[in-house]
Amino acid sequence: MSQLKNDLFIRAAKKEKIERTPIWIMRQAGRYLPQYRAVREKSDFLTMCKTPELAAEVTIQPVDLIGVDAAILFSDILVIPEAMGMELIMNEGKGPIFPSPIRNTSDIEKLKNIDPMVELKYVMDAVSLTKKNLDNRVPLIGFCGSPWTLMTYMVEGGGSKSFSKIKNFIYTQPEAAHVLLDKIAKASVNYLSAKIEAGCDAVQIFDTWGGILSPSDFEEFSLPYMKYIVSELKRKDEPVILFAKGVHHRLKQLAKSGANVVGLDWTMDLGKVREKIGDLVALQGNLDPTVLYASEEKIEYEVKKVLKAYGKGSGHIFNLGHGILPDIEPAKAKALVEIVKKESVKYHKG
Amino acid sequence: MSQLKNDLFIRAAKKEKIERTPIWIMRQAGRYLPQYRAVREKSDFLTMCKTPELAAEVTIQPVDLIGVDAAILFSDILVIPEAMGMELIMNEGKGPIFPSPIRNTSDIEKLKNIDPMVELKYVMDAVSLTKKNLDNRVPLIGFCGSPWTLMTYMVEGGGSKSFSKIKNFIYTQPEAAHVLLDKIAKASVNYLSAKIEAGCDAVQIFDTWGGILSPSDFEEFSLPYMKYIVSELKRKDEPVILFAKGVHHRLKQLAKSGANVVGLDWTMDLGKVREKIGDLVALQGNLDPTVLYASEEKIEYEVKKVLKAYGKGSGHIFNLGHGILPDIEPAKAKALVEIVKKESVKYHKG
Repeated sequence: MSQLKNDLFIRAAKKEKIERTPIWIMRQAGRYLPQYRAVREKSDFLTMCKTPELAAEVTIQPVDLIGVDAAILFSDILVIPEAMGMELIMNEGKGPIFPSPIRNTSDIEKLKNIDPMVELKYVMDAVSLTKKNLDNRVPLIGFCGSPWTLMTYMVEGGGSKSFSKIKNFIYTQPEAAHVLLDKIAKASVNYLSAKIEAGCDAVQIFDTWGGILSPSDFEEFSLPYMKYIVSELKRKDEPVILFAKGVHHRLKQLAKSGANVVGLDWTMDLGKVREKIGDLVALQGNLDPTVLYASEEKIEYEVKKVLKAYGKGSGHIFNLGHGILPDIEPAKAKALVEIVKKESVKYHKG
Repeated sequence: MSQLKNDLFIRAAKKEKIERTPIWIMRQAGRYLPQYRAVREKSDFLTMCKTPELAAEVTIQPVDLIGVDAAILFSDILVIPEAMGMELIMNEGKGPIFPSPIRNTSDIEKLKNIDPMVELKYVMDAVSLTKKNLDNRVPLIGFCGSPWTLMTYMVEGGGSKSFSKIKNFIYTQPEAAHVLLDKIAKASVNYLSAKIEAGCDAVQIFDTWGGILSPSDFEEFSLPYMKYIVSELKRKDEPVILFAKGVHHRLKQLAKSGANVVGLDWTMDLGKVREKIGDLVALQGNLDPTVLYASEEKIEYEVKKVLKAYGKGSGHIFNLGHGILPDIEPAKAKALVEIVKKESVKYHKG
């Protein structure tokens, strides 16, 4: 860790003193970059995930091109269900499809107990190679989906608007749901631990679909499994980030989960959230990703608002409130990073 | 108003003493009812909206079949943009489409200033006929979309996942956006006032897409236009309900908008929201609509939780936290209504 040339992200996650606010961008290794599309043209999405050289290449692109303070390994949250034996079809842009989704206990029993060093060895190889090629310029973040979010995809068979299949599943087969969540959670612990062992400097758990649950269902079906992962994870002092999109109602519980950082979507009031939980965790976020459609002047105005909302002192990692959109101009992303680097200095003086 | 045989909904909206909690169900006149589908089979969606006999028939169905305490006029929020001159294609199930969406000021200038008694006379005729056929059994609710939500559809040209076109529009052409919002807001005032004049006992404004905005953008692009409608509306004492889905961050401002009732989606903590704004407004909601997939025992358990969360006293209108889903069994909706009627009595004693 100490070898990192730029460890602002790590120090901010631990709320240690820093000179300026670090920034990285969710989905920063993605389609908005022509250099990414050039790689993607020659390989399909899953091949990119499974080929360490390609994964490493696109992981490092935003560090070189955009100037972010952390890299996040190019991969997908659905590699775990695929490793467990579910056929996965990735239509980038259209969303993923599991042609044979989970329907009942017997489907769950058929899922393999995976050893990440076997079925997901390609991820660990990608981590090692990326770390080598990054040459400690910035930290490398590994990630996984929350058990709830993975189960949602596995039962819906893909994305959804009404989430009727997964809700039907938890209300009519709650015991089966908990068996599945437990199985995913255990696989995720091993997976993230192996990623850290392979060299990741931090990990993020994405609960993309936590926000479709009522508060009490979130407490039953999502929160405990994320807490389990955080508590069981084998790590030295690598920070853990929880990002539960739309979960405005259980911020305190997320802050008490044992994670170092809570990620916020753009509908959260960063200043108010800091008042509420800023003594417990660092906060990550939360510019509306669509602000990058605007002029640089407007981007600067909005960035300043976010920085001011968090205010003085360490514990803020700048990010978008959700992934960068594929039709954003790279120059806008670069401008964003430069504005954050310049404008955040004054919040760390004295 | 005083002629209503069942005015529980109206009294709850005004926080007057009631004997039990009233219930109605968003999208209650809809595809989950075989009787609705029978009408729908013979007419397309817009024809149903535009034929007072058909609109009245499906509006009253849930009163007869499910036993709800209020009817809501069968219609669609997009009849306003259509009346303004935009071609509208309704693919029920797939979502609406405007083949020629709004792109700039010149598109906005082309929109007609409508007189609801002319271009939307069919709605007023549907209100009159429904009132007549309802014979004052329960109140009739009229509705419109919020200006922000209508503009979102008008600019996106339909539904969206990333809302990139509307966000692009407000960030790059904010003045044009405000001109359009103003135009829609004025049309909405006249439209809702005419609906009340025609006989509606209450009105609801649906801000379906308010939740995709950051708090400050919500304050700029949505809230003021809803407040304008509430303040300009011609009404005697017909209650106004604001339902801004996902807007967890500006509940106090919604409560101070002049509306009588604030509707809550299922991710809101009803008890905590009552503590926060329950002295200012009545609250409507907020059972997770997907709970209706569950057994009657589970539905009862969840209904009791919602009733308990609000607690004793008037000011609660039971509803789902979003529209009923098309694949719910009508028997489950009926069970929901019966459970609310039975279990809520104890919260209004003494």
